[in-house]
Amino acid sequence: MSRPRLTILNQLGTATTRAIATSGAQVQVLDDACVSPWQQTAHAEILLTAPRNGWREAPQQAPPGWPGRLRWVHTASAGVDFYPRWLLDVPQVSCSRGVAAAPIAEFVLHALLAHTKELGQRRVTDPQQWHDGFAQVHTTPLGLLQGQTLGLLGYGAIGQAIAVRAQALGMHVLALRQSAAPVGDAGVGTVRSLPELLALSDHLVLALPATAATYHIINAHTLAHARAGLHLVNIARGSLVDQTALLAALDAGRLSGATLDVTDPEPLPTGHLLYTHPRVRLTPHISWSASNAVAATAEKFVVNLHRYLHGQPLLDQVDPQRGY
Amino acid sequence: MSRPRLTILNQLGTATTRAIATSGAQVQVLDDACVSPWQQTAHAEILLTAPRNGWREAPQQAPPGWPGRLRWVHTASAGVDFYPRWLLDVPQVSCSRGVAAAPIAEFVLHALLAHTKELGQRRVTDPQQWHDGFAQVHTTPLGLLQGQTLGLLGYGAIGQAIAVRAQALGMHVLALRQSAAPVGDAGVGTVRSLPELLALSDHLVLALPATAATYHIINAHTLAHARAGLHLVNIARGSLVDQTALLAALDAGRLSGATLDVTDPEPLPTGHLLYTHPRVRLTPHISWSASNAVAATAEKFVVNLHRYLHGQPLLDQVDPQRGY
Ligand SMILES: NC(=O)c1ccc[n+]([C@@H]2O[C@H](COP(=O)([O-])OP(=O)(O)OC[C@H]3O[C@@H](n4cnc5c(N)ncnc54)[C@H](OP(=O)(O)O)[C@@H]3O)[C@@H](O)[C@H]2O)c1
Ligand SMILES: NC(=O)c1ccc[n+]([C@@H]2O[C@H](COP(=O)([O-])OP(=O)(O)OC[C@H]3O[C@@H](n4cnc5c(N)ncnc54)[C@H](OP(=O)(O)O)[C@@H]3O)[C@@H](O)[C@H]2O)c1
Repeated sequence: MSRPRLTILNQLGTATTRAIATSGAQVQVLDDACVSPWQQTAHAEILLTAPRNGWREAPQQAPPGWPGRLRWVHTASAGVDFYPRWLLDVPQVSCSRGVAAAPIAEFVLHALLAHTKELGQRRVTDPQQWHDGFAQVHTTPLGLLQGQTLGLLGYGAIGQAIAVRAQALGMHVLALRQSAAPVGDAGVGTVRSLPELLALSDHLVLALPATAATYHIINAHTLAHARAGLHLVNIARGSLVDQTALLAALDAGRLSGATLDVTDPEPLPTGHLLYTHPRVRLTPHISWSASNAVAATAEKFVVNLHRYLHGQPLLDQVDPQRGY
Repeated sequence: MSRPRLTILNQLGTATTRAIATSGAQVQVLDDACVSPWQQTAHAEILLTAPRNGWREAPQQAPPGWPGRLRWVHTASAGVDFYPRWLLDVPQVSCSRGVAAAPIAEFVLHALLAHTKELGQRRVTDPQQWHDGFAQVHTTPLGLLQGQTLGLLGYGAIGQAIAVRAQALGMHVLALRQSAAPVGDAGVGTVRSLPELLALSDHLVLALPATAATYHIINAHTLAHARAGLHLVNIARGSLVDQTALLAALDAGRLSGATLDVTDPEPLPTGHLLYTHPRVRLTPHISWSASNAVAATAEKFVVNLHRYLHGQPLLDQVDPQRGY
């Protein structure tokens, strides 16, 4: 009699089920994007889920008997803030840290260039515009990222991917992380506090998780330290920013602009000022997107699955205490 | 009696004259943006000029007595194609190679990101658009430069500045230069021919001078080798491209787009199809622009001036034979 195989409840879809199957792992996969994954844990040791699939309707408290047979939860996201807190009460939780780092770093570079060079506004469609635009750069030259300072609040997978690219552009990169551990990467400077980071940066990118410690970390008090003309980029979570304070700083001219891929809530209600503010670029939480996203997420899981099956420690575990 | 000082005819403006003065060079500067510099060479050994200042009205043939007392011409541009051929008939000609390399490399990165990620089209202004945009990436994900191939036709100051940045983004970089000399830089691949470069590239950047050898180097024959969906970027000179062939390739869908900072002529006549083609982004020859452009150009000249005064070979000399 063969030993019963491990069962995975996969909520990411059939492409991921196929990727698991072709990886050669001796497992059984329940391919089920059901809306209440927490009710389906009687048969599975592993839950592979994403910040959708009905988690919005999840109960506040852990359902009776949680976590059932579940031994490991892996999420297709980098953050776990979307889930009820009790999801983390399983022996192991791991996340897809790094899968979206390159797409997001490109999104951020695009935002920095668009904000600084504004090429969209320099396009011309007739000879008069051409002459005007040709002359305009002598009084209003294009901006240059080279030599500017980029502040990174959070220096994990995403922060590091941004840093490499910004350094190649000749930007000065400063980073602040949660732990006291120095950043260590060549050429990336460290600062001791958020006010210091805000005061030194031309662009500040939020690349840290939404946790109890980071709620409204960008607020009227911290923004008061911002260097005049700061450009704020948020690709992490909307709850990091006090949006009322952000609007005030934009209107006061202290901030030159904000690029927001995330807001609080999502979407913002109809008529919210951030939708149409002339200094705000708002996108619908898409910075992670890339054509290889599904495959890369599956691959990330499969690597961890093989570690699990061989009794090796999982990569990119989530610490329930610190919340990331 | 003191030895008579060298005289520079400076056509770049008073800021440059000040930069020369503060450099400590023992020279006399005639600050004169006159329209006919070739008539003013009786008193100057050095001409510091730019592709403007009346050069469009210059005679076809060298004026009688040219080059007079002139020993050295330095141009504020990287190319010398704008000038009459006889301008190069002086003992030494040098150019501002490299001054605009970083601004142009940023312009190119901006173009690559805008073409690939099209974030301008992903912005939203109300909840319905937010939901639509959030869902859209599952069927139409954002593009990713990482893993794409960038072809560089020309690997001088500009090509190299682009390569460093593109490599940090995880792009494959291929280059083709005029000389047989290998590119040599780590990770930059070389190809043997333009058809090969066109066939392998997702984006092709023209970063080579306008010379007799490069006129219409992009034409119907070479474009026939283009990889389907190629994005062409021209920040060099309009004369490199047969614009009729370019339009045909765009309309046939062989090219997915063209980013043109230069055209032939400049500006294009009213109503030219490139102005409004949906796949073309046209800017008025501004990719070089940066707030430090005047200072950087002056500094470049001053370095060479000190070399000249100390009898050292000038940097970035132009070879009249090859035209760059
Ligand atoms: N918009 C999107 O589509 C999208 C996609 C993916 C991720 N995200 C968001 O981006 C966040 C970061 O992703 P990641 O992959 O880079 O995560 P990560 O690798 O876990 O890195 C998180 C970084 O944030 C730092 N941090 C945590 N708390 C902090 C605090 N209070 N102050 C300063 N720094 C703090 C951490 O410091 P230590 O290094 O000291 O631990 C670490 O450097 C995720 O948590 C998620 O919310 C958004
Ligand atoms: N849009 C703007 O505002 C702007 C600003 C600056 C410059 N430009 C243009 O950009 C051009 C390049 O500037 P740069 O500073 O990079 O010049 P550069 O340092 O002189 O480099 C020129 C490069 O082109 C290559 N090349 C020459 N002829 C070629 C051919 N027939 N086929 C393939 N490659 C060839 C050269 O090859 P080798 O290395 O073998 O010599 C070299 O690698 C300038 O000549 C100018 O026309 C435009």
